[in-house]
Amino acid sequence: MSNRQHYLVPGIPDDQFLRGEVPLTKSEIRCLTLSLLRLAEGQRVLDIGAGSGGLSIECALLLKKGSVCAVERDKEAVGLIKANLAHFEVDNVTLVEGEAPQALQGLGRFDRIMIGGSGGNLPAIIGASRKMLTSGGVLVINCILFETLSASLELLKSSSFESISFIQAAIARSHQIGGGTALQPLNPVFIVSAVKGAC
Amino acid sequence: MSNRQHYLVPGIPDDQFLRGEVPLTKSEIRCLTLSLLRLAEGQRVLDIGAGSGGLSIECALLLKKGSVCAVERDKEAVGLIKANLAHFEVDNVTLVEGEAPQALQGLGRFDRIMIGGSGGNLPAIIGASRKMLTSGGVLVINCILFETLSASLELLKSSSFESISFIQAAIARSHQIGGGTALQPLNPVFIVSAVKGAC
Amino acid sequence: MSNRQHYLVPGIPDDQFLRGEVPLTKSEIRCLTLSLLRLAEGQRVLDIGAGSGGLSIECALLLKKGSVCAVERDKEAVGLIKANLAHFEVDNVTLVEGEAPQALQGLGRFDRIMIGGSGGNLPAIIGASRKMLTSGGVLVINCILFETLSASLELLKSSSFESISFIQAAIARSHQIGGGTALQPLNPVFIVSAVKGAC
Amino acid sequence: MSNRQHYLVPGIPDDQFLRGEVPLTKSEIRCLTLSLLRLAEGQRVLDIGAGSGGLSIECALLLKKGSVCAVERDKEAVGLIKANLAHFEVDNVTLVEGEAPQALQGLGRFDRIMIGGSGGNLPAIIGASRKMLTSGGVLVINCILFETLSASLELLKSSSFESISFIQAAIARSHQIGGGTALQPLNPVFIVSAVKGAC
Repeated sequence: MSNRQHYLVPGIPDDQFLRGEVPLTKSEIRCLTLSLLRLAEGQRVLDIGAGSGGLSIECALLLKKGSVCAVERDKEAVGLIKANLAHFEVDNVTLVEGEAPQALQGLGRFDRIMIGGSGGNLPAIIGASRKMLTSGGVLVINCILFETLSASLELLKSSSFESISFIQAAIARSHQIGGGTALQPLNPVFIVSAVKGAC
Repeated sequence: MSNRQHYLVPGIPDDQFLRGEVPLTKSEIRCLTLSLLRLAEGQRVLDIGAGSGGLSIECALLLKKGSVCAVERDKEAVGLIKANLAHFEVDNVTLVEGEAPQALQGLGRFDRIMIGGSGGNLPAIIGASRKMLTSGGVLVINCILFETLSASLELLKSSSFESISFIQAAIARSHQIGGGTALQPLNPVFIVSAVKGAC
Repeated sequence: MSNRQHYLVPGIPDDQFLRGEVPLTKSEIRCLTLSLLRLAEGQRVLDIGAGSGGLSIECALLLKKGSVCAVERDKEAVGLIKANLAHFEVDNVTLVEGEAPQALQGLGRFDRIMIGGSGGNLPAIIGASRKMLTSGGVLVINCILFETLSASLELLKSSSFESISFIQAAIARSHQIGGGTALQPLNPVFIVSAVKGAC
Repeated sequence: MSNRQHYLVPGIPDDQFLRGEVPLTKSEIRCLTLSLLRLAEGQRVLDIGAGSGGLSIECALLLKKGSVCAVERDKEAVGLIKANLAHFEVDNVTLVEGEAPQALQGLGRFDRIMIGGSGGNLPAIIGASRKMLTSGGVLVINCILFETLSASLELLKSSSFESISFIQAAIARSHQIGGGTALQPLNPVFIVSAVKGAC
């Protein structure tokens, strides 16, 4: 039986992904992230710090004739992305093993860029992203760390990105416990988005 | 210039809708609602209590060859839905003016049902929804009122729906104020989903 | 060195309590709960389902000449309450081992009642609470379970309590992780409060 | 009839304050702020950017023989503080009209300092606060603006404050609407606290 998903909106349940110690962006956050990314058909998308591949896979499934380039430096994560690409039968994701921004060289231009992890190189990664984005392209940054949010906002402003804004998504899921229903909070995430204006 | 949206993920900015006194489901909530609805191509979707038409329109844009039936009892809301359908150039939404559950008669079967407003008729509406849903179909209920959440959970359980669960979405948006950035919370929404099992 | 606390506002750090498998009401929730309880000097307070004793101890420290009666049915919890009373050198808490509402018989009248756990006996416990409360007395119920909130609101209304309202407290704490600061969400709690009107 | 409050825990209902266009710290936030401040009897407390006087008044009521010094630059706010001090019959608050840090000169030393507003002078105010705080004293900063949180954390770290941490308080209150109960979110607040170590 095929595990390929045929849904029109992101939100593959977390437990359908192959998981390791590597973080997986939770389904609700994947959905909101790709919404803010303003994806359209045929686009080329770059996913920097792809983790377990959750965002790349949801994105690739929607893009059809478009494609995703997933960059990840962690060996275990790279293995998981490969496994999840096979699991979900996704063939329009190119996996680049290496550390951004060095690993980004020669990848070409992108309509959309997502940053899920920056490993301390955020200024250089945002700088490179600006160069790689097409005019009018959208950059989305998922921030778990407060410092990432703070630095992102400053860097985006000083790099002349436009329409800089963010949301904080605090999602809680129902779960059954002791004969009743409690709310289990996901870790709150800040999702920053910005547009590269016409140069 | 056409206002038709060509994005792959829901999340049309709120201010692109024609607005009145009628509530509009906020972009992030539209996105999460349609994610939990597990939409697939070609489906028939029913939107009960369609309000300003936000969910119906996002849904219809994604469905392409599928279609949405939007039911709404409020005159001003009906006018807004019509205006927004024209504004976004959406032609696969059928608008039914009237009050559920009476207005639901004769509409046929649906793969997905959303309830955004129930006007006090929730038990009858959930009962009718169960009959109208195809086997394996998904029902999603957006609850602003605590009592709606509470009643929904009980009714879904007693109506033999399966996989009953909900999330609470507390989204805050950045907004500029006094030279800085504050968080503006949207009203928290409970989004219930459930599946109609094989009979 | 004495561990007795001399602060004027509740909020003893969680890690200063002796902990077991028994839940401890988190410091921020203790603070908000006792705020809604509208404590005043010299009052008699009843704590039903006292757990690890967090609320009873904070309450007793503030009351000075007032006193707290803590009711708890779980053996491990009772042991923890005793240990924490000794640890914080609190001598105005009476510990009643047993299950509410039976264990409440003969305890007399109270100015304030907190319900932290009801073990499925909520209707009887709210009924008994109403009888034991002085006129104008305040009842506060901490609800982790959605069903407890729902039942509480209905029972309080049908028992002619007044000024029934609740807050949802979603608190996240900063914590250091991977060289940065993330937000760690506490489980969201619903805190219900109601007043017994003049009879 | 006297409006003086005799409760043991902060949380005077918002609507008991005299209000203007000046922001009032909401009751739940007052409670959490004073909890993190770790108030003890007889302390001298400084409230910088006192706004409508909410925190100063709750604090003063608890301190009894201690006292609060409230600093505020805005004329309308100063008038409101005076009115609220009279309204609640509080006589241990000294009101200083002027802008921090200049207005802080000569005020002496404090056991606790709260910053509710900094008017763009945060670095100088945190610097002055450090000098005015007694050893082991606690500083609490309420941040509505994201930039205030970000700057506070950096300044506290570079000023050798210890135990720097913060919470985000997202409180929603029940309110009756259309025959049901909805959740009304307060603006989320970040509450930073830090301790001045022994020099």
